[in-house]
Amino acid sequence: MIRSNEHYAGLPGAYLFATVAARVRAHREQHPALPVISLGIGDVTRPLPPAVITALHTAVDEMASAASFKGYGPEQGYDFLREAIAAHDYRARGVQMDASDIFVSDGSKCDVANIQELFSLSCRVAVTDPVYPVYVDSNAMAGRAGRWTGDRWSDLIYLPCTEANDFVPDFPAAVPDIIYLCYPNNPTGTVLHRDALAAWVDYARRHGALIIYDAAYEAFIRDTEGDVPHSIFEIPGAEEVAVECRSFSKTAGFTGLRCAFTTIPAAVTIPGPDGARIRLQDMWKRRQSTKYNGCPYIVQRAAEAVYSPEGQEQVRATIAAYMANAARIRSGIEGMGLACYGGIHAPYIWVRTPDGMGSWEFFDLLLSRTSLVCTPGAGFGPSGEGYVRFTAFGSEADTTEALERLQELRL
Amino acid sequence: MIRSNEHYAGLPGAYLFATVAARVRAHREQHPALPVISLGIGDVTRPLPPAVITALHTAVDEMASAASFKGYGPEQGYDFLREAIAAHDYRARGVQMDASDIFVSDGSKCDVANIQELFSLSCRVAVTDPVYPVYVDSNAMAGRAGRWTGDRWSDLIYLPCTEANDFVPDFPAAVPDIIYLCYPNNPTGTVLHRDALAAWVDYARRHGALIIYDAAYEAFIRDTEGDVPHSIFEIPGAEEVAVECRSFSKTAGFTGLRCAFTTIPAAVTIPGPDGARIRLQDMWKRRQSTKYNGCPYIVQRAAEAVYSPEGQEQVRATIAAYMANAARIRSGIEGMGLACYGGIHAPYIWVRTPDGMGSWEFFDLLLSRTSLVCTPGAGFGPSGEGYVRFTAFGSEADTTEALERLQELRL
Repeated sequence: MIRSNEHYAGLPGAYLFATVAARVRAHREQHPALPVISLGIGDVTRPLPPAVITALHTAVDEMASAASFKGYGPEQGYDFLREAIAAHDYRARGVQMDASDIFVSDGSKCDVANIQELFSLSCRVAVTDPVYPVYVDSNAMAGRAGRWTGDRWSDLIYLPCTEANDFVPDFPAAVPDIIYLCYPNNPTGTVLHRDALAAWVDYARRHGALIIYDAAYEAFIRDTEGDVPHSIFEIPGAEEVAVECRSFSKTAGFTGLRCAFTTIPAAVTIPGPDGARIRLQDMWKRRQSTKYNGCPYIVQRAAEAVYSPEGQEQVRATIAAYMANAARIRSGIEGMGLACYGGIHAPYIWVRTPDGMGSWEFFDLLLSRTSLVCTPGAGFGPSGEGYVRFTAFGSEADTTEALERLQELRL
Repeated sequence: MIRSNEHYAGLPGAYLFATVAARVRAHREQHPALPVISLGIGDVTRPLPPAVITALHTAVDEMASAASFKGYGPEQGYDFLREAIAAHDYRARGVQMDASDIFVSDGSKCDVANIQELFSLSCRVAVTDPVYPVYVDSNAMAGRAGRWTGDRWSDLIYLPCTEANDFVPDFPAAVPDIIYLCYPNNPTGTVLHRDALAAWVDYARRHGALIIYDAAYEAFIRDTEGDVPHSIFEIPGAEEVAVECRSFSKTAGFTGLRCAFTTIPAAVTIPGPDGARIRLQDMWKRRQSTKYNGCPYIVQRAAEAVYSPEGQEQVRATIAAYMANAARIRSGIEGMGLACYGGIHAPYIWVRTPDGMGSWEFFDLLLSRTSLVCTPGAGFGPSGEGYVRFTAFGSEADTTEALERLQELRL
């Protein structure tokens, strides 16, 4: 008789954002008068840049005639896009990277969720805490997280990131095999400076660990001193122990269009069952060519247009608009006397709840009294308790209205 | 220290179509004069239908302004598409199906590869033989297939489909928990008539097994008597023991656009670790909301257009053109004195090699002497040895030229 994957039964409740959505729906039905404004989920609101729209129309027309029609594409992405990425995201920053090390996909969420399949179930996994839930849940579903104990998984190694350590994770007592790092960080909006990231690369090298580096928000880095790396591969030696996930979702507004990439340098190798080292990119190629059929051609042409001079200028304007929201949210919240973090090099603002209030309690208070939606920090891990996340992805008008409602809250 | 998933090390060689592509590349370099014609991989050549192109342009324009822009969509697909599918693919055939049972994705390959994650690693898997390699490889990567023994996996249950049983799989000696069936069949092009499919549904019900039914080619069924089911859910009782995968790839030319769906009726339940039954669609929702972010909005609008009256007419014309190719390939091959199967209700023609020649040997002979590409049957499983697969997806001109070259082959 068929049996379910037993690790699904151990998963606590629904996916965080689904729970938030359900509470918002219930509130809306009970209080239809005041429109809900969400500064919760990290979804963009500004339209696709004109350069992207033009590229999409052109590519759609190619699909309309047999001579230029494109069927199955290469699972790893078209060369035109892989080349553009290698040139603009890496070589332009002084990082050597070949187009063949770039693997295009339909989303960073998929890539960071799927990559754990390449590793033994015996690997120990470390995550920063608070953390983007996908790293945790994908490992839990595979059976690498142990038991859920109410607020954490028995077999995961949590790396707390709080005010106490200035949101820079310390090396843990138990040595992990796989380390998930996300910078600029979701949910805290904080960054890792060059020295701190170099220390983690050195740690991975010394312990034979692999770093899965989620840099989905690198375009929001405002640093002009070069002290906040955009890519982990700016750190020498990382090209042997790290994988990097990037996305067009937040940069160019692709959350509904779906395009991302994962960079796996040829030099990254891991021991196979007989101890001989295997190229990780060969395993990923095998996984993707078996289980995936590539990102749509028209979407890859759209992503390519992001790198055109017009595309770059339009994307910079979009990001500047979101970061203006971030600055206003920060100052509004600080004006309320609440401690807040992030929002300088990232679209997320991480806010201490007032008077030690629980994060779901504050979420409910905010929703019921102002019809504003944030994300409860506890949903991101035990060290997220006592915080909530605001995002800067709302429209300018919504953000203004949200700040006015916050002023009236009088905590 | 990090370790690889040990099951990857046991995989034999590269993915079938990658091997074929490599041999074709080598041939092309050595013999640049005669252009290669591929009747190998099942990729379409006719452009997207005009109704789909129009829908794409309209949806792209929606993404250009903030008022109509779409960010993250529902992971399970937009209601407009799920409703259209439930109405046209099911209710129009007299099958009760709710839109909430339809799960839209970016490809059937992804869905059939990913769905095994929902099941215990202890489940026994049965596949028809020959078989689409993804069912096998995805289970092998998870560790459900045992050891590779040279031409088969030690722990899989193979259901031979050959001339001997008229390509209808018999019930196996060992009882499987998961049964993959694909009809119209890839690679043999044969179909399962209503009685035979009903017998398999009954078998699954009696043994507590689940059928994963791949109906990617249902639109090619020419039967007018109603004796060849388009959906497994035309069989009463299947709604409790089957999942169905469908695609717009071959129907409407979406191989490069990427849209498909999996139907999991609410009544399909499987035992969890404590024996209590779990709704399979709830597990799939959890999987998809954790590891997937939905099919692009513009692509879902394109898929919706396939169901418009113009879209339906255009798709029928496309399929008729491919099926005209199929008929010509069949008669050309039969004229050579070779036995062939399929090609009546499917775009695939399954051909017995001459004089008991090995299928890779015949593939190489055809490539070297005529620059024609087929797919070696042995790549689809042990019972595929001694056959090759031709596809009807070439252009009319290429198919004509291919048939002329075949006549000159003089076996």
